[in-house]
Amino acid sequence: MISVGIVGANGYTGFELMRLLACHPSAKVTLATSRSLAGQKVADTYPTLRGAYGDMVYSDVALEKLAQDCDVVFACLPHGQSADICGKLIDLGAKVIDLSADYRYDDLGLYEKTYKLTHPRPDLASEAVYGLPEYNRKAIAGARLIGNPGCYVTASVLAIKPLVDAGVINPKTVIVDAKSGVSGAGRKADVAYNANEVSESFKAYGVTTHRHTTEIEEKSGAVVTFTPHLLPVHRGILATIYCDLTATAKDVEKAYSRYDGEQFVHYLGNKLPEIKTVAGSNCCYIGTAIEEKTGRLIVVSCIDNLIKGASGQAIQNMNVMFGLDESAGLPKVGFHL
Amino acid sequence: MISVGIVGANGYTGFELMRLLACHPSAKVTLATSRSLAGQKVADTYPTLRGAYGDMVYSDVALEKLAQDCDVVFACLPHGQSADICGKLIDLGAKVIDLSADYRYDDLGLYEKTYKLTHPRPDLASEAVYGLPEYNRKAIAGARLIGNPGCYVTASVLAIKPLVDAGVINPKTVIVDAKSGVSGAGRKADVAYNANEVSESFKAYGVTTHRHTTEIEEKSGAVVTFTPHLLPVHRGILATIYCDLTATAKDVEKAYSRYDGEQFVHYLGNKLPEIKTVAGSNCCYIGTAIEEKTGRLIVVSCIDNLIKGASGQAIQNMNVMFGLDESAGLPKVGFHL
Amino acid sequence: MISVGIVGANGYTGFELMRLLACHPSAKVTLATSRSLAGQKVADTYPTLRGAYGDMVYSDVALEKLAQDCDVVFACLPHGQSADICGKLIDLGAKVIDLSADYRYDDLGLYEKTYKLTHPRPDLASEAVYGLPEYNRKAIAGARLIGNPGCYVTASVLAIKPLVDAGVINPKTVIVDAKSGVSGAGRKADVAYNANEVSESFKAYGVTTHRHTTEIEEKSGAVVTFTPHLLPVHRGILATIYCDLTATAKDVEKAYSRYDGEQFVHYLGNKLPEIKTVAGSNCCYIGTAIEEKTGRLIVVSCIDNLIKGASGQAIQNMNVMFGLDESAGLPKVGFHL
Amino acid sequence: MISVGIVGANGYTGFELMRLLACHPSAKVTLATSRSLAGQKVADTYPTLRGAYGDMVYSDVALEKLAQDCDVVFACLPHGQSADICGKLIDLGAKVIDLSADYRYDDLGLYEKTYKLTHPRPDLASEAVYGLPEYNRKAIAGARLIGNPGCYVTASVLAIKPLVDAGVINPKTVIVDAKSGVSGAGRKADVAYNANEVSESFKAYGVTTHRHTTEIEEKSGAVVTFTPHLLPVHRGILATIYCDLTATAKDVEKAYSRYDGEQFVHYLGNKLPEIKTVAGSNCCYIGTAIEEKTGRLIVVSCIDNLIKGASGQAIQNMNVMFGLDESAGLPKVGFHL
Repeated sequence: MISVGIVGANGYTGFELMRLLACHPSAKVTLATSRSLAGQKVADTYPTLRGAYGDMVYSDVALEKLAQDCDVVFACLPHGQSADICGKLIDLGAKVIDLSADYRYDDLGLYEKTYKLTHPRPDLASEAVYGLPEYNRKAIAGARLIGNPGCYVTASVLAIKPLVDAGVINPKTVIVDAKSGVSGAGRKADVAYNANEVSESFKAYGVTTHRHTTEIEEKSGAVVTFTPHLLPVHRGILATIYCDLTATAKDVEKAYSRYDGEQFVHYLGNKLPEIKTVAGSNCCYIGTAIEEKTGRLIVVSCIDNLIKGASGQAIQNMNVMFGLDESAGLPKVGFHL
Repeated sequence: MISVGIVGANGYTGFELMRLLACHPSAKVTLATSRSLAGQKVADTYPTLRGAYGDMVYSDVALEKLAQDCDVVFACLPHGQSADICGKLIDLGAKVIDLSADYRYDDLGLYEKTYKLTHPRPDLASEAVYGLPEYNRKAIAGARLIGNPGCYVTASVLAIKPLVDAGVINPKTVIVDAKSGVSGAGRKADVAYNANEVSESFKAYGVTTHRHTTEIEEKSGAVVTFTPHLLPVHRGILATIYCDLTATAKDVEKAYSRYDGEQFVHYLGNKLPEIKTVAGSNCCYIGTAIEEKTGRLIVVSCIDNLIKGASGQAIQNMNVMFGLDESAGLPKVGFHL
Repeated sequence: MISVGIVGANGYTGFELMRLLACHPSAKVTLATSRSLAGQKVADTYPTLRGAYGDMVYSDVALEKLAQDCDVVFACLPHGQSADICGKLIDLGAKVIDLSADYRYDDLGLYEKTYKLTHPRPDLASEAVYGLPEYNRKAIAGARLIGNPGCYVTASVLAIKPLVDAGVINPKTVIVDAKSGVSGAGRKADVAYNANEVSESFKAYGVTTHRHTTEIEEKSGAVVTFTPHLLPVHRGILATIYCDLTATAKDVEKAYSRYDGEQFVHYLGNKLPEIKTVAGSNCCYIGTAIEEKTGRLIVVSCIDNLIKGASGQAIQNMNVMFGLDESAGLPKVGFHL
Repeated sequence: MISVGIVGANGYTGFELMRLLACHPSAKVTLATSRSLAGQKVADTYPTLRGAYGDMVYSDVALEKLAQDCDVVFACLPHGQSADICGKLIDLGAKVIDLSADYRYDDLGLYEKTYKLTHPRPDLASEAVYGLPEYNRKAIAGARLIGNPGCYVTASVLAIKPLVDAGVINPKTVIVDAKSGVSGAGRKADVAYNANEVSESFKAYGVTTHRHTTEIEEKSGAVVTFTPHLLPVHRGILATIYCDLTATAKDVEKAYSRYDGEQFVHYLGNKLPEIKTVAGSNCCYIGTAIEEKTGRLIVVSCIDNLIKGASGQAIQNMNVMFGLDESAGLPKVGFHL
């Protein structure tokens, strides 16, 4: 049994790790830390955890203990804070999967410009492996530090990268109009996320300025106009992607054939997925349409932002790191309801 | 044109007054105050107000100005704070409609016990008129201070009082199982009302302890077990009421015939209203069912908590006070969608 | 008092006309027809109408009676069926506002290709006036037949046309990524719109094939890639529009200054509206952002699909036709909650 | 590996069985039948099933094949139709878990009166075991035919029966005010369940007449006033239960101690569960409050109607029948989001 530690377990990605790992056949959360809720029962914050975790309490953050007792540590911390703590955990000999943005970028300058921070551990930043298993499986298997991809980035890159790599689109014409459920905003006491303000509404935010833009660009190889929107649903991202097609429909199909055999990424041809296709599962579904009139390719890509977009992908990375079946403990079917 | 002032205009009942009064043929909001948002545009907090209020800003609270410039002042303040401010406004010669609980009770001791406060103005508390027009029309017409009823109380009392008054139920057997939309909780930065926590959920709260219980009991004459619940909808209260019937179905019908001719209270016989019947309107709809097996009468009563349960009823009171058509500016049809 | 008839009053646009006209100071619904529900009370289908319409019943469709008794008739019928019935009403001397697509197009061939129909009344098709008051006020005032614009079209054209007219964008680069609430799908017994299938989901539909595309193109002068999506909210359309900017930020501002003085169309500069800004009102709000990196202009445009996108705009047209205040009976403030 | 057949697999309980069994370590759906969708892919109706079931198609109903190839058959059919088909499957040697009402009642007359039907297989009706594992574990283990409890019944009986059995309440005073998510209504093309009609609303239905009333009464031993309501959420039932307490708070606690050691039923004392505590899990959570003023006990009981209220409980029964860990494949943690 793999012993799992979670730093910053009180947020939604921490919760989701605890929820998913409760069903994992070979891993178990043994230490869930939270600075703000140390000493309190996890079931006081998330009553539904009681069924699997009983009276377990959040521990205070103790890096030595985490490094010593846990086979792997998931870091669910704000970017900026995470880099340093993950670095110390690595120094103490831990294997770390970082869900923040701190270890995702190849180009450290791009990270620093995007997040307006100086990275405290350039050494580890260059060592860290980007945790997109469909592309980096081998490197992940040997890694001690994973930068787990952003949610919008996962939905976008899985859709765009095959097209860029195959040279079937003009990579300078990509627009990603993305819509995310509210859980993406995290567990916050903020009027902007009050149910009265969110439900029965919908809005764009971070237009031309959202930080995931540079990560999408670095990982996909495209120049991207990225517009995120806030959907009044709990989970799920749907990205509608527009680009100029430079090849045929068959070439598009062939580009996506790279996902043949993947357990969690499915290309549906001209059937388009919706949020409900993926919410609750670790899957990414992708569908395409071609507009003759303009020569544009339209791609729709969907994931569950908390699962394939965060905690599920983190577990998928753990499975790869520990040589387990890549799908162990990960749902292939969504809630539908 | 009646000049209207609103104290504490930044909350949801203040917003709703501004929204409704934008369509009132003979009244107009001329002063909207907010201590916390003074100097800011109302459209910054509620962008939809721009269409009717343009660049109007929240003023700081200035009681003299309110009393002098406004024909009537609506107070949308927390209980406890409201009593004093309304008192001062009255002293300055204003007519005041208080949406808080401070001037609702006949029995001041009951108020003080319920709200754990000492009332600063017992003189005015005994003068104030309870603003339920269907029962107090004449007194409201001559009043200078109105205690506007609570939302749960309006839904409950309009349903229960006719039965108690007519002696057709045992008034010691009343259970009110009430469900309210989230707007009832107000505009708050609180994780408990974060969309992630509220939507796709439902819960009871304040069981056996909710403060509206004593107001329901005082105004209806019944002993009441009151259980409120939080519904994942914006607006609306539905109260399912259980009591022992001591008379016939015809007697029930006769009891509710007191609402014949009312513009805003409708008895539907054995058709039961739902939230959608009322949300967006100033109406209360009531339906009943009798269970032979147990001899119980089941009453379903619905209102929009922000309109008939707060701001709409306050405007109805204003209309009565100023001798206008009681329905001026008040919607008789709900949104449905 | 203008006497209003509604043909096909049992759908959502018919309901919305009845809801809005219940508050109109100078117009009143006197005849609401429905083939399928003739003889049934309007309050049986929409219980909330009881407060304003009491025991009114849907009449069977009788064109002579409509033409004779009503000063204006709103047609809420499916496209294809509407052309013929509106034509007969006109022949009988009625003034008609048609909410279907049948009298919207200048280019009849484009209509026939888009809707795969032969138009039965080319004579009237060329006479009919497109009911977008912000552009056609004078013609509407003198018209006897109005083609009321489509919902997606209203949101799109109000945003795009000023830019095309001012020559500040490349009109061949326009992408409209639009999201609409479920009321846009109408009142249907269809599993696809069952609450279980719609809520907590989101999807694109009609990609590259939606019929509003040609109407948007004809009325805006742009070539448009149009992708509609289904939002899990009742009301509202938000369109995120992408195009290549060929001028400066100032030029954009100047282009939108054509709406200065409009009561229902508001340009917000770089503030972006959301669904909540407009749902419940007859307003269209528009905001813009410029992306330096790509030279793209991003426009966000919002309306309530049932009001400015259908029934409210129809009433606005009626107001213009009858020389009333253009905003009579039309809400300038949305529900917010 | 247990080979599972599902009759009527296209409805929501059939879907939920397929979703849950996709994660079951020792059981697998090998045959999913649907008369109306025979020959179609399961992923055409539920696209999210593609991840686990690929191109599997619904088979036509073939009882011999089901009985022969499957170790156990789940029947997800309408009451009335189910009795006969389950009977034939039993005759053919199958083990059957019936999710309809047909094999739930001890008193066949009560069933026939409630459902207005003549039962075709009284022999099997008296043999069938009521599938509430917390009460009938031993009998379930040896059964070949299970009557799987109703959703409202599970939530109600798990809360009421301990109190009746322990004699701590007056069993003639019980009121169950229950609220259920929309999935309880099934997958239907019906305007009443159109998203436009359900969301932002709430209503009571089947007041004094709902068929689950008699099942609750038979299984709990109480006389019950039962009022179901339709909640605008996907999943979950919350029952607020009122009864006259005839003993002490300690006695109540002791009554519920019968669930100590249960994996799926949790008594929380005076903490009250909410829908979110259970939605997505197979758990039932129960909390209580005592009202001194009236001597009433108020019980709040929550389950996920599709899991503990239907498909999850059916799998729990299967686990017991086949000697597996009772919790195999069943989630102990809900979605929360």
